[in-house]
Amino acid sequence: MHIFFAASIEPATKILLALFLMLLAAKLAAELFERLRQPAVVGEILAGVIIGPSVLGLVAPSEFVSMLAEVGVIFLLFTVGLETKPSSIFRVGKSAALVAVMGIVLPFIGGWLLMRAWGSTNITSLFVGTALVATSVGITARVLASLHLLNTPVARIILGAAVIDDILGLLVLSVVSSSSAGTINYWEIGTTAVLAIGFIAFVALIGARVVTRVAPRIHNLRISDSLFIAGLVLCLGLAVAVSFIGVAAIIGAFLAGMTLAEATKGDERLHTQTSGVMEFLVPFFLVNIGMQLQLSVFRDWSLVWLALAVTLVALVTKLIGCAAGVWSLGMKRAAQVGVGMMPRGEVGIVVAQIGLSLGVIDARIYAVVLFMAVATTLIAPPLLITLVKADVSR
Amino acid sequence: MHIFFAASIEPATKILLALFLMLLAAKLAAELFERLRQPAVVGEILAGVIIGPSVLGLVAPSEFVSMLAEVGVIFLLFTVGLETKPSSIFRVGKSAALVAVMGIVLPFIGGWLLMRAWGSTNITSLFVGTALVATSVGITARVLASLHLLNTPVARIILGAAVIDDILGLLVLSVVSSSSAGTINYWEIGTTAVLAIGFIAFVALIGARVVTRVAPRIHNLRISDSLFIAGLVLCLGLAVAVSFIGVAAIIGAFLAGMTLAEATKGDERLHTQTSGVMEFLVPFFLVNIGMQLQLSVFRDWSLVWLALAVTLVALVTKLIGCAAGVWSLGMKRAAQVGVGMMPRGEVGIVVAQIGLSLGVIDARIYAVVLFMAVATTLIAPPLLITLVKADVSR
Repeated sequence: MHIFFAASIEPATKILLALFLMLLAAKLAAELFERLRQPAVVGEILAGVIIGPSVLGLVAPSEFVSMLAEVGVIFLLFTVGLETKPSSIFRVGKSAALVAVMGIVLPFIGGWLLMRAWGSTNITSLFVGTALVATSVGITARVLASLHLLNTPVARIILGAAVIDDILGLLVLSVVSSSSAGTINYWEIGTTAVLAIGFIAFVALIGARVVTRVAPRIHNLRISDSLFIAGLVLCLGLAVAVSFIGVAAIIGAFLAGMTLAEATKGDERLHTQTSGVMEFLVPFFLVNIGMQLQLSVFRDWSLVWLALAVTLVALVTKLIGCAAGVWSLGMKRAAQVGVGMMPRGEVGIVVAQIGLSLGVIDARIYAVVLFMAVATTLIAPPLLITLVKADVSR
Repeated sequence: MHIFFAASIEPATKILLALFLMLLAAKLAAELFERLRQPAVVGEILAGVIIGPSVLGLVAPSEFVSMLAEVGVIFLLFTVGLETKPSSIFRVGKSAALVAVMGIVLPFIGGWLLMRAWGSTNITSLFVGTALVATSVGITARVLASLHLLNTPVARIILGAAVIDDILGLLVLSVVSSSSAGTINYWEIGTTAVLAIGFIAFVALIGARVVTRVAPRIHNLRISDSLFIAGLVLCLGLAVAVSFIGVAAIIGAFLAGMTLAEATKGDERLHTQTSGVMEFLVPFFLVNIGMQLQLSVFRDWSLVWLALAVTLVALVTKLIGCAAGVWSLGMKRAAQVGVGMMPRGEVGIVVAQIGLSLGVIDARIYAVVLFMAVATTLIAPPLLITLVKADVSR
């Protein structure tokens, strides 16, 4: 019983309307793209571009939608984690680490050099380099899941590399951010590194064993769907825990899923319930990425060229860096890993937001970084699908 | 890759922490209450009281949490709608209408008289009366669903009455609100009434037939889980549509579920996916109700007595009014309907918020109405379960 005063629409109604429009647009675009044999994720992100401020302006990004998007990608990675046994990631640990390191060094240097050449200050250039480091594994995971390819070596290397990439990216961001403030606190950065690596290693190594032992007891609880509920609690709990260290919440959600993978294997109901939450929330994540795009600054043509150059550097350096890390798998697989690590998505957007708030990049460079984040996220899925299909059909 | 600056916690992390604490507290309380053979909903609301500002102050109500709670109760009613065929509601239409009307008249007069006797102004008294009119059907639906009793005549009467109750409550609120501004716009209130009744009748009568005809086509779409997705879109769409008229969003969600009931019967996957979203979001709805409670004003003892008196009037008038509407079903069933209509929950809270924003009730009366809303919501479930069990065992 909310009252309707002629002219003014209630805030709650506005938000519901935004959710309705986002979901409708996302799914219409997804259907269209599926029919055109193009990846649905790309359609959903483009739906965000179209209904967002850049084109139609039907829906503006809001705090609520951003947060719902965050919960959406958390669930996406939780679902992916549920399909991933920790041991399968450990087995590819060395390759994943190489991919992560190479996939950080090259984009960072590439971004920095490009911005220096364009005439930016050193700190701005370092920050753009940092934004190019970020990898948004959610997009790739979604594509691989839709192709039922989460259990391949390529997928495991990408997932493992994404975890390591996030930790290393965090450290790069810490160094660059604190150097923008004038002094680098090595002690703090060191503790962050030790904490992040220690916590993630601890959960990955011990978590699954603990959960597998506790799961039967959770099954016996009186509340209905107790294991599903416990999974949700663990997912949110680890997402919060890693956030406190500074690691992305999605890494915690992925870890939570992974520790539950063994205990929930074959639990059809739990998997279907999780997929329900995921299917509901992930479109908001994808549409929200598209809505971030700010095209209005691109009336200045020199900025268009810069955006295209930054995007090209982002694509090429990540591809070469990551592919070099797993060259031993053969060129095709190496290319798949490289393309899979390309999307910068929401992680690149977050780095850009931090840069803007610290004052080390201005609104124009911010728009350039957003363009790069959205463009890499749109380009990677069709490339990945083409490469995977070529590989399968061989 | 969110950066962690020693002292300051990121807003996103704060919200995730709030979600984690709310879900954990809700489910621990639910488990405890199940073991004590008490209704889980009561445990989850009390969890909100305990972690909220009134007791521990661990989590403060926020816009994000309130909105997530709103989406949660929308899904709850959508799920309930999925179990409800429109024809089964139409069959009890006359009883439901009688229950709704009687359940509005008595509480309104009761609340108004009590507040006049306490010495409040006429407009404040009218507003408290209006708050006593509200019925939060979500709580009762949750209890009946957990007892697998949604397909009983009692449940259908309660659901039908809740829809009518909401429309009538809207009109009462319109009259009282506009009279607080000095002039009553009968034309506007008339159009609102016609729109609300017309739209709901139209959807209820035509909706199911349209959906049943369109459903096979939706099944053939390329996107995965297309019927589930279409259901979500319809749910949000109708929730928005009725909100524009001024009716509660949950009524739209209930209608959406009802129109889909026939088309989705036996679709196990869709029902499980919907239940996943519901199980995830409903705890936030319940905990958020508990968190609204403001106990600090009750250091003033006269206010404690007023809160208890208002609650008592709210309980007794709703019980007698609604039970009188279905006296023909026999005392036991009539009492079940009456108790099922008792909870004021989030609807009462919304009315109180409107009253506060219009300046017709002060912070003290606001706290009294909140107390009534939470207390009626806590008292009804155990009463309902006792009555239902006594009826079944007879």
